[in-house]
Amino acid sequence: MPKVTFHPDEVSVEVERGVTLQAAAKAAGVELASICGGDGICGRCRVIVKNGHIEAAPTTLLNREEIQRGYVLACQTKVLGNVEVEVPPETRAEEGQILIDIDAQRFRALYQEERVSFRHEPLVQKLYLELPPPSLHDNLADQQRLYREIRRHRDYPIMQMGLKILRAQPKLLRQHDWKVTATLGLRGGTVEILQLEGGDTSSRNYGIAVDVGTSTVVAHLVDLNSGRTIDAEAMYNSQRAYGEEVTRRIIYAERGGLEQLQKTVVNDINNLITALVSRNNIALHDCSAVVCAGNTTMMHLLLGLDPSSIRRDPYVSCSTAPPPVRAAEVGIHINPRGLLYCVPAIGGWVGGDVTAGILATGLYESDKTVMLIDVGTNGEIVIGRREDGFSWMVTCSASAGPAFEGSGVKCGMKASRGAIERVQISHDGNVLYKTVGNVKPKGICGSGLIDLVAGLLEAGFIDRSGRLIPEASSRIRERDGLLEFVVVPAQRSATEKDIVITQADIENLLRAKAAIYAGTVILMKSLNLDVTDIDRVFLAGGFGNYLDREKAIMIGLIPDLPLEKIRFVGNTSIIGAKMALLSREAWEKCEEIAQSATYYDLISFPHYYEEFLAAKFLPHTELERFPSVQKRLTEKGVKALPPGPSPLVTYGREVPKVG
Amino acid sequence: MPKVTFHPDEVSVEVERGVTLQAAAKAAGVELASICGGDGICGRCRVIVKNGHIEAAPTTLLNREEIQRGYVLACQTKVLGNVEVEVPPETRAEEGQILIDIDAQRFRALYQEERVSFRHEPLVQKLYLELPPPSLHDNLADQQRLYREIRRHRDYPIMQMGLKILRAQPKLLRQHDWKVTATLGLRGGTVEILQLEGGDTSSRNYGIAVDVGTSTVVAHLVDLNSGRTIDAEAMYNSQRAYGEEVTRRIIYAERGGLEQLQKTVVNDINNLITALVSRNNIALHDCSAVVCAGNTTMMHLLLGLDPSSIRRDPYVSCSTAPPPVRAAEVGIHINPRGLLYCVPAIGGWVGGDVTAGILATGLYESDKTVMLIDVGTNGEIVIGRREDGFSWMVTCSASAGPAFEGSGVKCGMKASRGAIERVQISHDGNVLYKTVGNVKPKGICGSGLIDLVAGLLEAGFIDRSGRLIPEASSRIRERDGLLEFVVVPAQRSATEKDIVITQADIENLLRAKAAIYAGTVILMKSLNLDVTDIDRVFLAGGFGNYLDREKAIMIGLIPDLPLEKIRFVGNTSIIGAKMALLSREAWEKCEEIAQSATYYDLISFPHYYEEFLAAKFLPHTELERFPSVQKRLTEKGVKALPPGPSPLVTYGREVPKVG
Repeated sequence: MPKVTFHPDEVSVEVERGVTLQAAAKAAGVELASICGGDGICGRCRVIVKNGHIEAAPTTLLNREEIQRGYVLACQTKVLGNVEVEVPPETRAEEGQILIDIDAQRFRALYQEERVSFRHEPLVQKLYLELPPPSLHDNLADQQRLYREIRRHRDYPIMQMGLKILRAQPKLLRQHDWKVTATLGLRGGTVEILQLEGGDTSSRNYGIAVDVGTSTVVAHLVDLNSGRTIDAEAMYNSQRAYGEEVTRRIIYAERGGLEQLQKTVVNDINNLITALVSRNNIALHDCSAVVCAGNTTMMHLLLGLDPSSIRRDPYVSCSTAPPPVRAAEVGIHINPRGLLYCVPAIGGWVGGDVTAGILATGLYESDKTVMLIDVGTNGEIVIGRREDGFSWMVTCSASAGPAFEGSGVKCGMKASRGAIERVQISHDGNVLYKTVGNVKPKGICGSGLIDLVAGLLEAGFIDRSGRLIPEASSRIRERDGLLEFVVVPAQRSATEKDIVITQADIENLLRAKAAIYAGTVILMKSLNLDVTDIDRVFLAGGFGNYLDREKAIMIGLIPDLPLEKIRFVGNTSIIGAKMALLSREAWEKCEEIAQSATYYDLISFPHYYEEFLAAKFLPHTELERFPSVQKRLTEKGVKALPPGPSPLVTYGREVPKVG
Repeated sequence: MPKVTFHPDEVSVEVERGVTLQAAAKAAGVELASICGGDGICGRCRVIVKNGHIEAAPTTLLNREEIQRGYVLACQTKVLGNVEVEVPPETRAEEGQILIDIDAQRFRALYQEERVSFRHEPLVQKLYLELPPPSLHDNLADQQRLYREIRRHRDYPIMQMGLKILRAQPKLLRQHDWKVTATLGLRGGTVEILQLEGGDTSSRNYGIAVDVGTSTVVAHLVDLNSGRTIDAEAMYNSQRAYGEEVTRRIIYAERGGLEQLQKTVVNDINNLITALVSRNNIALHDCSAVVCAGNTTMMHLLLGLDPSSIRRDPYVSCSTAPPPVRAAEVGIHINPRGLLYCVPAIGGWVGGDVTAGILATGLYESDKTVMLIDVGTNGEIVIGRREDGFSWMVTCSASAGPAFEGSGVKCGMKASRGAIERVQISHDGNVLYKTVGNVKPKGICGSGLIDLVAGLLEAGFIDRSGRLIPEASSRIRERDGLLEFVVVPAQRSATEKDIVITQADIENLLRAKAAIYAGTVILMKSLNLDVTDIDRVFLAGGFGNYLDREKAIMIGLIPDLPLEKIRFVGNTSIIGAKMALLSREAWEKCEEIAQSATYYDLISFPHYYEEFLAAKFLPHTELERFPSVQKRLTEKGVKALPPGPSPLVTYGREVPKVG
């Protein structure tokens, strides 16, 4: 097999002939920047081939000089023999972006395999128009002439136009020889002429999709003409200063903090947008649409709507489908007349992020029974399928807390550079791990925490109730009266402090997974479904890059199903938001999903709390519910690693073989 | 016949038994206030019956004490024997209102005889809603709950709501126990929730219809629930300071005066609205709709749209059907979220006032061939009918100048108190006249000018080219090198100056009538119609109260048709605007009319100028086109008055018998 060596990392990997350099890099654990997910359109994965046998697809994203210097796009270049590759600094995946790039890749994977595509018809469109100049025989007024021309291209029966544009229009039309570009914004069954520009500016039309999470805000910059994702950016939701959980923020809003919370998240979104447009030399003026997906409370706080009734019986929100509003009206800086769309919510506790998730996974039209588990600060569960031409979807929400997002866990962090995303405990009790970006570890992200708890259980370092067993490992110690397990000692961590998981952390994680699992059980029961009736599970959330499904079953986060039935699909909220941004059809599907999905309030199910308590064990009080785990735990030598070389290494030495 | 005597005027009139006191007052020349046109709903025509035999319909508009004191509503009281009536000061028709009251009456007459009625569905409606409070089993969000309740009452598929109302809504709903009043504004195929108020405020919903004329602005205050006209007010368009005619104002706008013109007319409208609401103790807050009808230039100036292209080949306007806008955006003071609707125009020179006129006269659905002549500063002519289920309408516009509105004529004035509205020249060469309100004359309004010119012709004081013949009357004299005819000597006029008509005035009037008549001829010719093909002529305009159709034919303003084919219909612009305000169906009919009517540009007809020149004679160069006039003029003793008592008297003595 050809060998590919990456500099300056000095790591090598053997790959099949014909594999792309991008896949080779992934296999070698070398992170390359990429936004388009390997479609050869973002130009971010540029690397220099020093020597070797390759085949590179033609591209316009590299100039002649660059090609002469050896530059190729890693995703468009096949390995035909041994190759030596240099990864230039600009191609190194940056902190904060990694999370996103993975999502972009997942979007692609999801799109190709799971989804039918929607018709490309962005919520905001630019239309270049050449109007016939008026004559005595065609003396239609300016506005009506404009409408007539638009109708020749688009079938929008109800058009609207503001007074300012109406006033500016006659001069503009005549100055530009009746050649203008109209920006059309779809709003609630009508279309508004948001902007009229002289000449042809139709090539410059951008939009932003935003996942407004309780913990993290993610924004993607999208070219609305081509549909491609140009760039992405993420940050923690600064509202966290006012409370980690949704309920805390509602209480803060009730105490007069609504405006503060509103400004805070708008400021985050503006910071993300500013970073995206400035980095890509795009004028804010050319961004006229923002689509936000978030849980219902986040949407309320973004719009400045009072969220207080969401947390009180009968848990009613102010709006589940707010109309599109001018982005400027809520303080978002794009084109002053640009629109803000919020993906409609299903209920007070199942928001537009879940609607977007249902859209992204195609759950509403699957002829299989599908379960979507979106693990965030709240864990939402959806079960649905299409039967006899009719879609049914039932949803519920479980208050998990932010443990899987790396919050409320002592050394937790989000899945950015330096986060431990994979963990294995070796037969000799050592901890093998891998970090995002292969740098020194700073903390542990969601996928790492799942691996870790599963590993501790398999190693016998914790019992099935999650209690650390001090005599089982020298890494277990007591600090301030609390037991903890040392994952990485200070001398090997980037923070120069021990990276640990405490007894309290484990309990937090158990509570979180129990809340979600109990939700799945109640939802299945209420639908008279058995776990074997579930044909597919989509696991969504910002855990990290390589969620180990087996480990997720091991800790009892998801039902014990054959692995081929389970898919990790990443951040479906932003994927769905982006689909809606790019297609009126998809947007209307969101409205349909939000209206037709049924919300079950877990609190109204008396058995929910029982199920929750029973699920607080590893994997569950009733071990027989998890036969694969039962088998594994009862197998002899369960604490030993499987034979063969370890797939995991500590920082910077060997690399795992993936793919 | 019973005799009715009016105090303190001390005038008597004999009327048929069963006639109303209102009709008797009219016959006696006693002007009574009236807004509703005799429907018994405005309560303005209150009079005191001192003694006599009457029958009064029950009314809630008079209290017990008033009834005991003898008060009745003149329009609801029938004369059964001799009656003595006192007209209290508050029931005297006020200056400025007279013009309007007559229109209100005409509206009624027109409505009953000519028009099918439109479904009552005002452009802005108030809907009182009692929402079911949310429960665990009905946990729809506030906004969606509101929409659902509205949809139970109204079938508006597309609803819109602004962020401010969305934000205020949850508190309002809960504070008022889920009982609220929604103000719904129709805008371009959608409905906007303009306002949400706690409790039931649905009884307070008012709108304003405005006729924005080049010379006069008229406003009616309408109760949108009952459809009744509460009050009316009129004033000269203050834009007159910037030019009498439309073209002058366009030029002024082109020279940087657009904003000034816009503010001026908005200020006029605000003054009218303020007067109307304050007089009737109505809060501006409860007025959420203004419908304006005006010619296309007036509409442009009102909205602040550049009118310059209207006067230049190919005579294209900025918009013929501008969308409804927030009234506040153009500076009109009603409810801050209230809407301004402009009745759509047919073309640059045939405006929304004509569309409203077509609506008001029902021309578009007449199975007869109808001609509408709207005499204003521009004279617009429409010919149309309905044939085989299809309506055709052809329109043109003739630049008449404001002579018939009393402008550009030395002693001209609008048809308000003190205006000479009827004139006859007696066999001995004396001038008999009647003024609006039976007060001392101040000047001459349109109808008086028509009578006067016709009278001068019949008396032989002018020849058929309109030249005054000095030797024919001692009232003809020269002043400053110009001939003039003394209508009222200074000692009998309210201004203490001679009221005269000059040679220049006569020429102005001839030019005006020639322009309009030539328009009717060209329009008929282009449709291959002869004058005998016209089944009905509607003459509209603000001439005065009693337009003498015979005199209008005598001077050649309208074609020589049997009088029963001709109707004087008053201000159809405001009538139509009011119909549109009160009915979505009527509004949509306006849109249909504006789109389907064809505009003929007179300038593109080479024969128009020829026709105009030929029409500058009295009644016309070709006398045979006016056989009835020809007959009269050639009859022997044409200068003598018909036998019997004179129907006209000078101020304050006898009264004419009318009706």
